[in-house]
Amino acid sequence: MNTIGNLLRLTTYGESHGAAVGGILDGCPAGVEISLENIQAELDRRKPGQSHITTQRKESDTVELLSGVFEGKSTGTPISFIVRNKDHHSSDYNNLKDIYRPSHADYTYIAKYGDRDHRGGGRSSARETIARVAAGAIAKEILSHYHIDVKAYVSQVGSIKVGKQYTQLDLNTTEDNIVRCPDQDIAKQMITAIEEAKEQQDSLGGVITGVITGVPAGLGEPVFNKLHADLGAAMLGINAVKGFDYGSGFDGTELPGSIHNDPFINEGGDIKTSTNHSGGIQGGISNGMDINFRVGFKPIATLVKEQSTINKSKEEVTIKLKGRHDPCVLPRAVPIVEAMAALVIADHLLIQRTRRL
Amino acid sequence: MNTIGNLLRLTTYGESHGAAVGGILDGCPAGVEISLENIQAELDRRKPGQSHITTQRKESDTVELLSGVFEGKSTGTPISFIVRNKDHHSSDYNNLKDIYRPSHADYTYIAKYGDRDHRGGGRSSARETIARVAAGAIAKEILSHYHIDVKAYVSQVGSIKVGKQYTQLDLNTTEDNIVRCPDQDIAKQMITAIEEAKEQQDSLGGVITGVITGVPAGLGEPVFNKLHADLGAAMLGINAVKGFDYGSGFDGTELPGSIHNDPFINEGGDIKTSTNHSGGIQGGISNGMDINFRVGFKPIATLVKEQSTINKSKEEVTIKLKGRHDPCVLPRAVPIVEAMAALVIADHLLIQRTRRL
Amino acid sequence: MNTIGNLLRLTTYGESHGAAVGGILDGCPAGVEISLENIQAELDRRKPGQSHITTQRKESDTVELLSGVFEGKSTGTPISFIVRNKDHHSSDYNNLKDIYRPSHADYTYIAKYGDRDHRGGGRSSARETIARVAAGAIAKEILSHYHIDVKAYVSQVGSIKVGKQYTQLDLNTTEDNIVRCPDQDIAKQMITAIEEAKEQQDSLGGVITGVITGVPAGLGEPVFNKLHADLGAAMLGINAVKGFDYGSGFDGTELPGSIHNDPFINEGGDIKTSTNHSGGIQGGISNGMDINFRVGFKPIATLVKEQSTINKSKEEVTIKLKGRHDPCVLPRAVPIVEAMAALVIADHLLIQRTRRL
Amino acid sequence: MNTIGNLLRLTTYGESHGAAVGGILDGCPAGVEISLENIQAELDRRKPGQSHITTQRKESDTVELLSGVFEGKSTGTPISFIVRNKDHHSSDYNNLKDIYRPSHADYTYIAKYGDRDHRGGGRSSARETIARVAAGAIAKEILSHYHIDVKAYVSQVGSIKVGKQYTQLDLNTTEDNIVRCPDQDIAKQMITAIEEAKEQQDSLGGVITGVITGVPAGLGEPVFNKLHADLGAAMLGINAVKGFDYGSGFDGTELPGSIHNDPFINEGGDIKTSTNHSGGIQGGISNGMDINFRVGFKPIATLVKEQSTINKSKEEVTIKLKGRHDPCVLPRAVPIVEAMAALVIADHLLIQRTRRL
Repeated sequence: MNTIGNLLRLTTYGESHGAAVGGILDGCPAGVEISLENIQAELDRRKPGQSHITTQRKESDTVELLSGVFEGKSTGTPISFIVRNKDHHSSDYNNLKDIYRPSHADYTYIAKYGDRDHRGGGRSSARETIARVAAGAIAKEILSHYHIDVKAYVSQVGSIKVGKQYTQLDLNTTEDNIVRCPDQDIAKQMITAIEEAKEQQDSLGGVITGVITGVPAGLGEPVFNKLHADLGAAMLGINAVKGFDYGSGFDGTELPGSIHNDPFINEGGDIKTSTNHSGGIQGGISNGMDINFRVGFKPIATLVKEQSTINKSKEEVTIKLKGRHDPCVLPRAVPIVEAMAALVIADHLLIQRTRRL
Repeated sequence: MNTIGNLLRLTTYGESHGAAVGGILDGCPAGVEISLENIQAELDRRKPGQSHITTQRKESDTVELLSGVFEGKSTGTPISFIVRNKDHHSSDYNNLKDIYRPSHADYTYIAKYGDRDHRGGGRSSARETIARVAAGAIAKEILSHYHIDVKAYVSQVGSIKVGKQYTQLDLNTTEDNIVRCPDQDIAKQMITAIEEAKEQQDSLGGVITGVITGVPAGLGEPVFNKLHADLGAAMLGINAVKGFDYGSGFDGTELPGSIHNDPFINEGGDIKTSTNHSGGIQGGISNGMDINFRVGFKPIATLVKEQSTINKSKEEVTIKLKGRHDPCVLPRAVPIVEAMAALVIADHLLIQRTRRL
Repeated sequence: MNTIGNLLRLTTYGESHGAAVGGILDGCPAGVEISLENIQAELDRRKPGQSHITTQRKESDTVELLSGVFEGKSTGTPISFIVRNKDHHSSDYNNLKDIYRPSHADYTYIAKYGDRDHRGGGRSSARETIARVAAGAIAKEILSHYHIDVKAYVSQVGSIKVGKQYTQLDLNTTEDNIVRCPDQDIAKQMITAIEEAKEQQDSLGGVITGVITGVPAGLGEPVFNKLHADLGAAMLGINAVKGFDYGSGFDGTELPGSIHNDPFINEGGDIKTSTNHSGGIQGGISNGMDINFRVGFKPIATLVKEQSTINKSKEEVTIKLKGRHDPCVLPRAVPIVEAMAALVIADHLLIQRTRRL
Repeated sequence: MNTIGNLLRLTTYGESHGAAVGGILDGCPAGVEISLENIQAELDRRKPGQSHITTQRKESDTVELLSGVFEGKSTGTPISFIVRNKDHHSSDYNNLKDIYRPSHADYTYIAKYGDRDHRGGGRSSARETIARVAAGAIAKEILSHYHIDVKAYVSQVGSIKVGKQYTQLDLNTTEDNIVRCPDQDIAKQMITAIEEAKEQQDSLGGVITGVITGVPAGLGEPVFNKLHADLGAAMLGINAVKGFDYGSGFDGTELPGSIHNDPFINEGGDIKTSTNHSGGIQGGISNGMDINFRVGFKPIATLVKEQSTINKSKEEVTIKLKGRHDPCVLPRAVPIVEAMAALVIADHLLIQRTRRL
């Protein structure tokens, strides 16, 4: 269950304070250009310490490719990659060995496995997503061959929301600020909000919006592996994610069908729809329009602020978490959302090759 | 890709105007009491024509069990069930053969497969969910053995919303009205809204809330098959679903961590949390609290009202759909949501048996 | 675990004395010509009562297609088929309810599931293979599109063996005799041997040889899903099969490498090998030469002859099985072997479409 | 397709002359004692250079555990292990870049992927089996908890065969000689035969026999994942394997049913069979008797002796392979056979936990 995908399959491993995190990407077609630099660049977008609003941990997160690539191209065999863990402050966690941190996975891991690696969250640490970002960078190479582009941005932090639709924004400016929001004014407000949350030893959640352009019509399976179902599962598998919707999403549930329906039009010989409440997916299958979706993140559970909880002996205790954590994970989660989206689309591109005689 | 589940696996088949719809449930443990009556009772909650606010099609949807059950109990072998299709008005669809209905799967099926069974939506018809409800009825039998209960209700129709939390409602009254909303006052408003939409030849969407009680701590996998990711994928695979969130959901993204975190408490020796923003799931694994989630449905795309679209020759045309359709699918979707939730939980119950030496 | 295949997936259901046996073939590409007559013709090769050396049970085994086919072609959606069970002599089995027949699955089913449907072998009955033959007929249609041909024949019954290699035989004459052996002289001896075994209330095993021609180079996965590993698993999943080898097989284990190696040659511009000890598969991947393999079947366990065994109370008992059984299953197993081989090759044809950018 | 197993899943990666080989074992229950020493000891049984009849390559094959183990026990999360490649003589292979070695995977890899890592066989190298042996060592730990024992030995080299049944041998003496044959007299003959083959620049194949004791009744799935089908697939996935049979195997196909059937007996209250032609498996499910099987290996294709073949330009060429290869892989393949068997049995132990309510 540490594997995702049907034909393009990612399996990940690793705990935050173990020897390494990494993964195996199986099913990558032969002939894809694999650039260590591109993979590292995506990891750098995810790594800690990249700005004053992220955790100040220093981790270089340098990736090594172990297999499946020969003379700069994928060979068709499994691509394995590894990032060694460094900068362990495992002792930060010693006092937490027997305490169930609120809204963490401490208690549930014990309930599941009987015991756990308590250092730094172990397997539940977001360090696991390193493997996803590395694999996603390879998936993006596959997509680029098809002229498919995956972009994500922070559209909400706490109660501060981007009011514009993605079509009204220049998504090429997302990286122009440290919060990764293409609305530069809203970005400033978001940064201030995060700074304040940090000062108050608190944390903030928010929303990341994803946009995939260039997807040909026909991707996605009609029933259980609807394209949005696979996208949703991929997003809901990211740490701290609480919700997913696409196209008109939850807002669209309030519209009448006569407004919500997207009329087909002939646009210079191409089949398009005049509106896109469908979010580029109809009956679970892409229709050639942009695919857009939202991913809701809860505020991170790790707080410096004092909290009450219980320990293994079920005694009430109070804790103040040291560690060095993000007051808001959204900015660093942008490349993770992109990676998971890229993996899902690339997987369905391969599946679709097999759907007609 | 017409299969869902890991150890408890449902594979479905069938088009709306073909010979039959049905499925195979594989991996059901031996010894589960299987009652044809219970399965039929769930199908009756889903069937058309059950009230004046649903489609007036008359389909008895009588299920037959073909295998896997002996002397009233599951044998451990695949359980196959079939519902013959009746009441075909295939000719209703002849004029639609070459037209892409707005926000339907007509165009995307053609894009995917090159051709399609155009009668009644074929595989994209919600008749496919018959198989899910039948399988879900069996999953519920498994859950009842563990004292786990799955309930769903309509919490929003169009812009009419239940204001109360599920904890403030008596979910045993959900079936007391035809819209399946346990807030009887809101239910009346919803029914009126659906009647009005019908009169206006329009359709309405909404939200179904699901609540699962009695789930032991420990279900769900830490990474890709988080319990909420599997629930989300199952829900997003239901026709017309646009979004999924759980616990505090999208609303919770606006809260600070200090409020959102759920402190653990010792409640008479049991480990509980004093709030449940986590929706019963932490780190992807159940924590023993109630699991609650929301499923957003778009307004159904089939309208009697005239609409403009294009045909296969890419010419603009207008259509008025006859057929006999639901102005709002929410009431009939309640048992489908329950069925999918039951299948996911039962699957994870089995998985969890293998997680400790 | 009642599913086989990766992209082309067959799920089967049904007990011998239940309502029906059948299956779902998922992943069949759209556009394959599906002829009910062809499917029925394959089933007729498998059905009981076709000659005096098979069981005299009368079962028409009439197949019905339930989904996935429209206007004579596959639509890309799941193809479901069903064969109703008839001619039940369930009472034949009443006296066996509590007895473990030697070398049957009676005891192991009880050990596995705690209980079982004892009538006619239930799920362990070879009637389950009806679904395989039906699905295999569809797989053969896919293969015919690629000019790939799958043939099998009986090469051994008891100790009577065909001495010639398959290349020395005319495989088009396999159906010219009731034992399905293309060596007409040996066929007569086999028939006599089966007649004698029947008279002696005994049973015979043997070997079926399979030959697949026209397979392009490149099918099969390098590591765990080697083409011969998937073929082997498919064959070993057939009732009564005890062994599988391919190419030079077990005999080849005695040869030195200098003789066993197959030198590559240029044959009119085509890459061939001058010998074919590899059986058309090298490193798990087809090399374009004929694929040939052997499948060993034990003598069927059902004997009219008196046998000693124990019952559920672990008391020693003797039994004489009535029923109406084949003294030798090999002739009727030929279409089953072909079906399984066709499914495996068709599956790998689809997989291979995804292996290069 | 670089993954094997259902609940206990091994994914491997790595080319012989790449950075490393390794794997991820997912689904290992929490609480299994994991000893690096035990894993290394199994790898040492497989490593090159261990005797004068194996390749003289010097590779320490030192394994490192990267995840999934905490304080000496499995945590339930994926166990990743890695063995760095050393002692590259990649230049040995430069002259082979464009040549298709007879009965190697050179040509088929090109046919499949369009290109390949030609150094040392790349992914088709038996170095990939390192990951299997490491994972198998962990699977053996699981089995030991159930008192299940997996043993394999060389029962044939070229035409030299052990005449005795495994029950007549002391399998604890298998490691007493370098060829890993528990019949010490036959072992000497085998060693001499291998020495002679080496001298003649030739190679030898043979047979490995596997014996699994202590398996409880009830493991294995009735239809496609019969216990012997999964064992067979696992064995046929090992490099150079040409055949698999179990119990009476191919020899048993010549016996009449009246002799082949295994009568059940009550042995001091335990259910046993008086003979074991079934090889411990009936109807695909273990019956509690010993499981025994044979795995046939072809003579290794790498010969120092001159051979004729063709190159990429389809020109005839002759080659003399340098490299440093085993004249007979059987002795080193014994731990690989054991590893694969252990993985299959452990997987089915976990599956069986889910088969009854």
